[in-house]
Amino acid sequence: MKLATLRTADGTRAVRLDGEVLVDLGHADLGELFARADWRAKAAAASGTTYPVEGADFAPVVPNPSKVVCVGHNYTNHIKEMGRELPSHPTLFPKFADTLLGANDDIVKPAETEALDWEVELAVVIGAQVRRADEQQAADAIAGFTVMNDISVRDWQFRTIEWTQGKIWEASTPVGPYVVTPDEVGGVRPALEVRTVVDGQVTQQDDTGTLLFDPVFLVQYISTVITLRPGDIIATGTPAGVGNARDPKVFLLPGQTVSTEIAGLGACTNKVVGE
Amino acid sequence: MKLATLRTADGTRAVRLDGEVLVDLGHADLGELFARADWRAKAAAASGTTYPVEGADFAPVVPNPSKVVCVGHNYTNHIKEMGRELPSHPTLFPKFADTLLGANDDIVKPAETEALDWEVELAVVIGAQVRRADEQQAADAIAGFTVMNDISVRDWQFRTIEWTQGKIWEASTPVGPYVVTPDEVGGVRPALEVRTVVDGQVTQQDDTGTLLFDPVFLVQYISTVITLRPGDIIATGTPAGVGNARDPKVFLLPGQTVSTEIAGLGACTNKVVGE
Repeated sequence: MKLATLRTADGTRAVRLDGEVLVDLGHADLGELFARADWRAKAAAASGTTYPVEGADFAPVVPNPSKVVCVGHNYTNHIKEMGRELPSHPTLFPKFADTLLGANDDIVKPAETEALDWEVELAVVIGAQVRRADEQQAADAIAGFTVMNDISVRDWQFRTIEWTQGKIWEASTPVGPYVVTPDEVGGVRPALEVRTVVDGQVTQQDDTGTLLFDPVFLVQYISTVITLRPGDIIATGTPAGVGNARDPKVFLLPGQTVSTEIAGLGACTNKVVGE
Repeated sequence: MKLATLRTADGTRAVRLDGEVLVDLGHADLGELFARADWRAKAAAASGTTYPVEGADFAPVVPNPSKVVCVGHNYTNHIKEMGRELPSHPTLFPKFADTLLGANDDIVKPAETEALDWEVELAVVIGAQVRRADEQQAADAIAGFTVMNDISVRDWQFRTIEWTQGKIWEASTPVGPYVVTPDEVGGVRPALEVRTVVDGQVTQQDDTGTLLFDPVFLVQYISTVITLRPGDIIATGTPAGVGNARDPKVFLLPGQTVSTEIAGLGACTNKVVGE
């Protein structure tokens, strides 16, 4: 199944993609849907109101997750290319619900930065409450996968030793358009082509199968520390090719379009605009 | 006013301290109260059901904030003592709602660490929605102050360059007991004695008047990046004397009691227990 949270004139709705239409699932958003123990059966069976896919206005797949945990340094090829040792533990940093954007929303470049950068990421969306999940529980807790563009404000990110202030900017981070269930992408450790395209030029390209810490391991690791709840999001890290690592550095400017794409999941395609 | 969120048999209630009793304010918690534009008048005027202070079971002052932003390296004396330069920008890191504890709850030492540490902090609780607040807006957005013990799992904190995974442990971080409005502590930049006491021994002691980045500045800085909402919490950093900086290092063990205290605000007093 491909599930989404759609903006309508009457607020958001959880929907399932069915050919050319989106079928209403009887819930306001996917966070509310995933909080049901029977969400898979409910989502598969629903046959209510439909909305056209064409012109659909996607909200963040989960508009109000209790936590968004992001991972750094996770693509093996990128780590080796940078001459780094493979890390023994994942590097974690946060985003907040207020940081998220819909899959096709404009990215507003804050007036406070000239260093707005892209980071395509496979994101895991949680479909069950878990703490200290074992491998099977972690696999079962994955509702599905989506695309995140982990937009980073590099000058603020590197003002201090902690990245947080460059990672949590208001309405900066597209996530969507769909949560695609694991059965549609080869399971809970999918090997999918991932890339970023800026104004038609490919800037990042890799395979999610090369993740050092895979989705199941990340659910286990993070749930050791804190409860993962339905709708929570884990962003699994970005491959080589970000603007900040280029020589000279390249950053996003108003007027550009950035598309972050994962085979089988779709794309976040966003115009960058000025304030 | 001294405001709190009280656990009762019928769920949590927002209350105001009135001598020996806590007066019900007609809301489930302080987050809900602070979302009212007229919360100050409402809280001052309320005269409903009362609960005895004695034996009160305090919830986190705001049980479900949309974000908790913490500051590192912020006590001038501590920074100088460590031989560091004064930083030009605050260092920010996160906690999540699931990380919080009530003021007198037990702190459960996770089985995964032997490096559980204390950090007393003045915490700012937000009482209005602000983005890119100017100085006056930032001052006006401060509902009041409370005590946080920014419990830190040091071995996980320093596994990677990002502190997050040592700072967000489930139900680790006491915050309370009261949100004390600025008028009761000398304004929005209070100079209050702050200390930690572990089993009767003072381990940290400083004055919140020596903060490098004061509460008003922090509201301005963080709200530049992201909207601060009613009930959001900013922890302003800890002074010298944490267990991890001692020689030899000292960490919290089951059976100990840790009390984090700020003059005029009260204390979080917590027993440490094993899992």
